[in-house]
Amino acid sequence: MADNARKLANGLTRIGFETDPSRYRHWKLSFDGDVATLAMDVDENGGLFEGYQLKLNSYDLGVDIELADALQRLRFEHPEVKVVLLRSAKPRVFCAGANIRMLAGATHDHKVNFCKFTNETRNGIEDSSETSGLKTICVVTGSCAGGGYELALAADHIMLVDDGSSAVSLPELPLLAVLPGTGGLTRVTDKRKVRRDHADVFCTTEEGVKGKRAVDWRLVDEVVAAPKLDDIVAARAKEFAAKSDRPAGAKGITLTPLKKKWTGDTCDYSCVTVSLDRGQRIATITLRGPDLPPPASVDEMTALGAEFWPLRIARELDDAILDIRTNEGDIAVIVFKSEGEPDKVLAHDAFLEANKTNWLAREIRNYWKRVLKRVDVTSRSLVAVIEPGSCFAGTLAEIAFACDRSYMLIGQLNGGNRPPATIALSEANFGAYPMPNGISRLESRFLDDKGALDKAKAAIGTMLDAEEAEKLGLVTFAYDDVDWEDEIRIFLEERASFSPDGLTGLEANLRFGGPETMESKIFARLTAWQNWIFQRPNAVGEQGALRRYGTGQKPVFDMRRV
Amino acid sequence: MADNARKLANGLTRIGFETDPSRYRHWKLSFDGDVATLAMDVDENGGLFEGYQLKLNSYDLGVDIELADALQRLRFEHPEVKVVLLRSAKPRVFCAGANIRMLAGATHDHKVNFCKFTNETRNGIEDSSETSGLKTICVVTGSCAGGGYELALAADHIMLVDDGSSAVSLPELPLLAVLPGTGGLTRVTDKRKVRRDHADVFCTTEEGVKGKRAVDWRLVDEVVAAPKLDDIVAARAKEFAAKSDRPAGAKGITLTPLKKKWTGDTCDYSCVTVSLDRGQRIATITLRGPDLPPPASVDEMTALGAEFWPLRIARELDDAILDIRTNEGDIAVIVFKSEGEPDKVLAHDAFLEANKTNWLAREIRNYWKRVLKRVDVTSRSLVAVIEPGSCFAGTLAEIAFACDRSYMLIGQLNGGNRPPATIALSEANFGAYPMPNGISRLESRFLDDKGALDKAKAAIGTMLDAEEAEKLGLVTFAYDDVDWEDEIRIFLEERASFSPDGLTGLEANLRFGGPETMESKIFARLTAWQNWIFQRPNAVGEQGALRRYGTGQKPVFDMRRV
Repeated sequence: MADNARKLANGLTRIGFETDPSRYRHWKLSFDGDVATLAMDVDENGGLFEGYQLKLNSYDLGVDIELADALQRLRFEHPEVKVVLLRSAKPRVFCAGANIRMLAGATHDHKVNFCKFTNETRNGIEDSSETSGLKTICVVTGSCAGGGYELALAADHIMLVDDGSSAVSLPELPLLAVLPGTGGLTRVTDKRKVRRDHADVFCTTEEGVKGKRAVDWRLVDEVVAAPKLDDIVAARAKEFAAKSDRPAGAKGITLTPLKKKWTGDTCDYSCVTVSLDRGQRIATITLRGPDLPPPASVDEMTALGAEFWPLRIARELDDAILDIRTNEGDIAVIVFKSEGEPDKVLAHDAFLEANKTNWLAREIRNYWKRVLKRVDVTSRSLVAVIEPGSCFAGTLAEIAFACDRSYMLIGQLNGGNRPPATIALSEANFGAYPMPNGISRLESRFLDDKGALDKAKAAIGTMLDAEEAEKLGLVTFAYDDVDWEDEIRIFLEERASFSPDGLTGLEANLRFGGPETMESKIFARLTAWQNWIFQRPNAVGEQGALRRYGTGQKPVFDMRRV
Repeated sequence: MADNARKLANGLTRIGFETDPSRYRHWKLSFDGDVATLAMDVDENGGLFEGYQLKLNSYDLGVDIELADALQRLRFEHPEVKVVLLRSAKPRVFCAGANIRMLAGATHDHKVNFCKFTNETRNGIEDSSETSGLKTICVVTGSCAGGGYELALAADHIMLVDDGSSAVSLPELPLLAVLPGTGGLTRVTDKRKVRRDHADVFCTTEEGVKGKRAVDWRLVDEVVAAPKLDDIVAARAKEFAAKSDRPAGAKGITLTPLKKKWTGDTCDYSCVTVSLDRGQRIATITLRGPDLPPPASVDEMTALGAEFWPLRIARELDDAILDIRTNEGDIAVIVFKSEGEPDKVLAHDAFLEANKTNWLAREIRNYWKRVLKRVDVTSRSLVAVIEPGSCFAGTLAEIAFACDRSYMLIGQLNGGNRPPATIALSEANFGAYPMPNGISRLESRFLDDKGALDKAKAAIGTMLDAEEAEKLGLVTFAYDDVDWEDEIRIFLEERASFSPDGLTGLEANLRFGGPETMESKIFARLTAWQNWIFQRPNAVGEQGALRRYGTGQKPVFDMRRV
């Protein structure tokens, strides 16, 4: 069940991430040739939790779940779309940002996970522009504040109507004593490259910036007189469509509803099973490899659509991870296991590699990239347990490399008759799925050890047993059956006994060595500061700004700097 | 006065940063040709505050102030030293890290500022290795835990005696539910390039790692049998000395005591004045330019020693910043002003530039680099107020570029007769003083605007009035006397009204756009996580691990992950 202090609306007991356009309450999706319009029109009474109204196009996690779904459907169901226009369907307001009453009443962990999900969605918008040819233009009419402007910042191009009142702003600090925590500060400095002193002025000015100054300070790309807006939007859409390499004539596939069934503490999907051991605070996610060889052609792949194994398992794993993150705060460790035939996984990798210029194969690999990044930033201890009968090969081996550590069994356990555990690498392990820091998981693993990386590359396609995998540095520990069960039991017990906060900080630091990108800055630096501030009495205390906003009472601050 | 909850020992009312070897209680500094030994021998009863004993070579801010002083004297007073051996003078323990009782009883702001200072000292050790030829070897005998190992990590080479018990460890998470916050996690991943899963095991293993595994996992550079230790240390010292370009025959200068005098809320140094307006929560630091032209030769500079203006003002500014940070937590804004002749500042810059291969000139520029970085990471709002008679030129202009924003007066104020404000650039603004992110303040300012950087470069040596400076993007706002006083008053009042925590987070994000280095990661990412954890009940609550350590009671954790 959802453990938030606040009750979920409509009698729900768990936050779900599945939706479809027929159920949207907050967004209107429309199409005009290769241009789609995603218009925000938040239903005030459609909040995810009880106790607040979503006024002025403000949003909560429920609104963002619909946004994420719409983007995903544009990627897979509408390959003909080259440009998305992000607009508001309400007069005089583009978006007021995250709902303040929702934030004020949410638990710390809900706030943090809400920000993480909204960050992932915005990073996905940028990634689709860069690697899928899906461009985004944000057309700002009315006030565009806080999270509203952070959404705009994810677009390739920001247009601001010049009507004397429409403005962009990041008023979090002056109004609420918190930070623009959905990438705002990082995108202002690192994407828009706003001069740091201008950024300082902008982020401390409640009413924001409009007109010419917004362009001069690089906060938006252009201001447009209201009467000319439609024409110029159409012209910009055409320009950006010309930069897209999405196929003109392709037909999309349908993202059918997930097959998902809870039985007690076990949730079965078609090729993923989650089983929760609440007593031990462990979730085990078992990934099942493909039963069939890959299709013979891209046409066959397209005909399979959402049933195509790499896409199906990515969607199921994505849903499983989001569900645990959001609804199962007491789970300390996620254990990843797999079952299946490694060669069939490798065959699917080879198929996707061979057809990587096909739009659907490209979308599937880009989706895997996002799902794997979702794993990277999941704030639970992650461990891969690699046993006989498993199939951590190629794309699935990335899961093991995303883990904080991995254990691999040498030989058999208790006279079992499954084939001894092997892992295997494919081309996909060497660049197809960069981490938030911009390099592959194996490059991150062997930061200063080009030799180790080369040896791993030379092993592509080889079925590696536990001792070989350990020697190549691909697993943390290889044990035989004498030590196996004790070692894993001790690790899991120990992990569950540590401070969850300490682990969150430790893992966030150790997972991302080496280079930084805007994305890793957002998750590692900005998020950490936001988490800190979300703990500080000046924001969340009884007299803090977040709690007192809108009450007519001024916040009372402890004025010591730290 | 020091506002820490705990009382300072020995009746002190303020933490001072000045010391000298004759007063050290915790370190023994000795010399043997080009090798200095800095032996840690902490006086248990020499704690900075009342209420704890510094057992097992554990340290508090007072111990680290002595370390910073010793390093500074090695740089300036002992140019003949090429290698520093960091050792313990106690049997069976190298260093137990930061004192836990001190941490458990310290206020949040003291903890955070303590970590910041210790980080700066360790970054300085690495910078001196890289740019001053002062190499450091850490010889670990006995247990080397937490902050002890973090000190070792700052060295160029870590030797661990192989005696069956000496080990390195980062037990913060399992023991205390906090992070190794003095760069430990970042140096493990990014400097030592320990594989991330090995790092995970290491950082969750209370007893640490010793012997061969410590080398295999890259945690130390070599393990050495006890009987051979002295010989091998001598050999290593010789090897590292050979890599140093410090001069063999040079004679050092003496870092004489600072001239510093408090009168009420004003502190006067020889060329720096700090005046505190506690009501408005403002500290004004006025920097005075040189009275004299630069010396005619490096011999004359050496004869001037600590009186040489660039060194003198750097020492005074450094002390002033540390004093405000540590002792004046209620100050919200630091206003930087200057007085003097810009051309004399430029002449000193030119002298240092012309003699930059001289060891002393190099040390002075490296010291300025560190002082300016200290300003960059100072958690107060920083503003430069550039008025008639000021001398923000060259090195002093860096102070204005380090500020969150700057105001410059156009023309005269109230019929004053000082020369109108100008600022001027020198070569020193284009690379001599990189920020923690590795690039100059002007490069950080013009991240995506090579044209602006080139224009600034073309203006080297030109006295720029307010309008020219604004046009070149070197100041935030230029105002004439009609608006001047109101604009500055409104800014200062507004700034003092904001949540100090929000400002800390905002400034930490906006000050460092662009690339990241290990150093910026330490300050921006690791520090933020540590600050977060220093707020969490699992660490600092009544039942938290930090509070309960050593009491015999186990900590009680809220097990939700966030």
